[in-house]
Amino acid sequence: MNRAYKKIDQEDIEFFQSVIPKSRLFIGEEIHEDYSKDELAGVHRYPDVVVEALCAEEISKLLKYCNEHDIPVIPRGQGTGLVGASVAIHGGLMISTIKMNRFIELDKENLTLTVEPGVLLMEISKYVEDEDLFYPPDPGEKSATIGGNISTNAGGMRAVKYGVTRDFVRGLEVVLMSGEIIQIGGKVVKNASGYSIKDLMVGSEGTLGFITKAILKLLPLPKVAVSLLVPFPTLEQAVETVPLIIKSKFIPTAIEYMERRVIKNAEDFLGKKFPDASSDAYLLLTFDGNALDEVERIYEKVADVCLEAGAIDVFISDTQERQESIWSARGAFLEAIKASTTAMDECDVVVPRNQVAKFVKYTKEVESLVDIRIASFGHAGDGNLHVYVLKDQYSDEVYTQKLKEAFDLLYKRAAELGGHVSGEHGIGYAKLPYLVAQQGPVYMNLLKGIKFAFDPKGLLNPGKVC
Amino acid sequence: MNRAYKKIDQEDIEFFQSVIPKSRLFIGEEIHEDYSKDELAGVHRYPDVVVEALCAEEISKLLKYCNEHDIPVIPRGQGTGLVGASVAIHGGLMISTIKMNRFIELDKENLTLTVEPGVLLMEISKYVEDEDLFYPPDPGEKSATIGGNISTNAGGMRAVKYGVTRDFVRGLEVVLMSGEIIQIGGKVVKNASGYSIKDLMVGSEGTLGFITKAILKLLPLPKVAVSLLVPFPTLEQAVETVPLIIKSKFIPTAIEYMERRVIKNAEDFLGKKFPDASSDAYLLLTFDGNALDEVERIYEKVADVCLEAGAIDVFISDTQERQESIWSARGAFLEAIKASTTAMDECDVVVPRNQVAKFVKYTKEVESLVDIRIASFGHAGDGNLHVYVLKDQYSDEVYTQKLKEAFDLLYKRAAELGGHVSGEHGIGYAKLPYLVAQQGPVYMNLLKGIKFAFDPKGLLNPGKVC
Repeated sequence: MNRAYKKIDQEDIEFFQSVIPKSRLFIGEEIHEDYSKDELAGVHRYPDVVVEALCAEEISKLLKYCNEHDIPVIPRGQGTGLVGASVAIHGGLMISTIKMNRFIELDKENLTLTVEPGVLLMEISKYVEDEDLFYPPDPGEKSATIGGNISTNAGGMRAVKYGVTRDFVRGLEVVLMSGEIIQIGGKVVKNASGYSIKDLMVGSEGTLGFITKAILKLLPLPKVAVSLLVPFPTLEQAVETVPLIIKSKFIPTAIEYMERRVIKNAEDFLGKKFPDASSDAYLLLTFDGNALDEVERIYEKVADVCLEAGAIDVFISDTQERQESIWSARGAFLEAIKASTTAMDECDVVVPRNQVAKFVKYTKEVESLVDIRIASFGHAGDGNLHVYVLKDQYSDEVYTQKLKEAFDLLYKRAAELGGHVSGEHGIGYAKLPYLVAQQGPVYMNLLKGIKFAFDPKGLLNPGKVC
Repeated sequence: MNRAYKKIDQEDIEFFQSVIPKSRLFIGEEIHEDYSKDELAGVHRYPDVVVEALCAEEISKLLKYCNEHDIPVIPRGQGTGLVGASVAIHGGLMISTIKMNRFIELDKENLTLTVEPGVLLMEISKYVEDEDLFYPPDPGEKSATIGGNISTNAGGMRAVKYGVTRDFVRGLEVVLMSGEIIQIGGKVVKNASGYSIKDLMVGSEGTLGFITKAILKLLPLPKVAVSLLVPFPTLEQAVETVPLIIKSKFIPTAIEYMERRVIKNAEDFLGKKFPDASSDAYLLLTFDGNALDEVERIYEKVADVCLEAGAIDVFISDTQERQESIWSARGAFLEAIKASTTAMDECDVVVPRNQVAKFVKYTKEVESLVDIRIASFGHAGDGNLHVYVLKDQYSDEVYTQKLKEAFDLLYKRAAELGGHVSGEHGIGYAKLPYLVAQQGPVYMNLLKGIKFAFDPKGLLNPGKVC
């Protein structure tokens, strides 16, 4: 949708000021640099105006006005995305949810939590765990907002056992670009009442509606969690073990893979040693449940599968301390890789679980083929890999060229293996060409048709997803 | 979309015959009466032509032709629906999937099963259980096709623990009304690659595309299952116990409620006694897991909750035989109620779990208010109730009037309690007025916009959902 958007003028600003007080409204040079980019910083542009909204009614007034005046609107949470989805690539009005951060209701009879979109993921975990309840989605970036998590259908480590954000959203309040406020779903457990607008909104990266409230599904908090750190002689052997684990029918909560050079980055970054240095490659598995004997039964079987598949050893971490030393390293991977280079971009592909080994092996081939450093880690248990192509010593020009070469090869291979462009970080602006290349015009026209049904003028987060 | 559809003529039939051999093509009087209705038989009309398709390519040719010639197309599985979704209310071409019933692939490394849409639910259970695997969705009607289950996002008893059909569909092959064949999702566990067309297709009741293949997610088969039959002095006490169970954080696999008069219908219908006759109301709970001690730990806690809430007793059924005698009665409820009256219609509302008691109580009020017999049973554990309004001795005219009165009251009350029109049976044709009444024009326009994106001429299963 390449159309002429209206440039925000004084009259527009006066309208915004009639809705939002000056303390929550920022124009031009008042806008903090953070609002011009997201975490990968590959896509840059300042919005013309930033407001911090407090409620759906404010957002409704702003959207209605912008819809009538052809002004782009960009929803924004913490800006922790990696694909430019929250960057104002056409300028316009950015609406931050950062001050819409109230916990509205914890309903213990229905096991639901109702929150505003600006509540942070780490706040949710803490809040519900204090009540012996559990919000399973566990993306690495704990300072992301729940609104952002819902918008990208964020996944995280525990997807192997529990599923992704979509599976834990029961209801939404959404402001449409027309300014209408709609309620979607609710506290109900089942729903077969028309097309699932809820599931469409989840993962739509702020392009179909502005999420102003979410009803989340909770589970009872598992009482026991155990991690296994399993060293393997080679990375190939480590990831080739994953389909064997799935096939064994003893399913862990999470299965991550990691290699020594990434662990080394994390050690340098954190200034702390990883608990083991015996090997070049590891699987890190977690298991949870309500009783230790039940969890033991499962992890012992999985440990056997790993040893039969060539694991060097199996280290059991059943103390809080040991687990934290491993998981803090795992949690620092993204930042550690970032700190190890001058710039980077990421490929968040997902492939069927039995194709992970092939894909990881291919990243090594691409590394030599394109002659660029590639670091990867990720969710081997659900086939979602984070592959980082690193700039290091290259000039901007050379890096841009090499990045394109590497990405073209990686996305092509993922598609051949039955995979998709993004497992959990979304399409945003940066990955759109790869989505188009993989899905083709018929499929993309469906996405455009859906976009048109929600936002006929194409003003809500324009240039993203389709 | 009230438009003039083209009436099928000789030329059209000749085209259909060029795609489908005579042995699988039925015209006018050759069409079996079954194809004029579904299981509730409230909506009647014969299609003009019925074909039994064998593959996506045949369906693609037929849809493309019908799209170009303004002929309505009605996808049809086993016709076990209850809302007229598979009835040709505008005539046209009905395409049955009954012969597309092949198991394509069981992938043990990815725990997926790929099937054609005409495979029956009971065939899937058997097929995967023989391999020690598990397809959890468990709707009452085991002779439904998986294509139909996906189209209504069928739920069933085990939704409390495992979720509904949507949660177990990973990928679909779909023929669009234009004749294009698209692949959606796949064997991947996560996906954040554009709007979730997969989740839109699930529950769209054959109005957005024709499902020709499905990739289902499987789980390891739980090794132990135990049922508890819990008599309560009153139905109110039984259903009021459900939110207490949820709140206890010991979550069963299924929680059903039933009352004596419905059990009596089932006893008469089956010619077999129910294992207990001590009470007017029961909760029936199941628990599953991989070890008896683990399952015991949970059901003992839940039994305590029930007894504290006033249960008369707790009968544990851990033998196959005892469980079958209870579940065969439960399985016969729909047919038994049907056999006890002259005609009936159903209200498949879903409400938050802590509102079930209020709603069930209200059905009793409606029963006296409207002076018509109402029988109900259902999934107390997920808030999805099946409420049957029975014709008995009333004339067609009086019944129609009373049914409308009762439905108006019931759907209004469900909405007030935060509920929705359908938990698992869908909207189809029969429940459309209630969806419109509850959701209002803004929401319904989104559904229409989505429909337009997939089927701009409104020819695929017209008159359903929106």
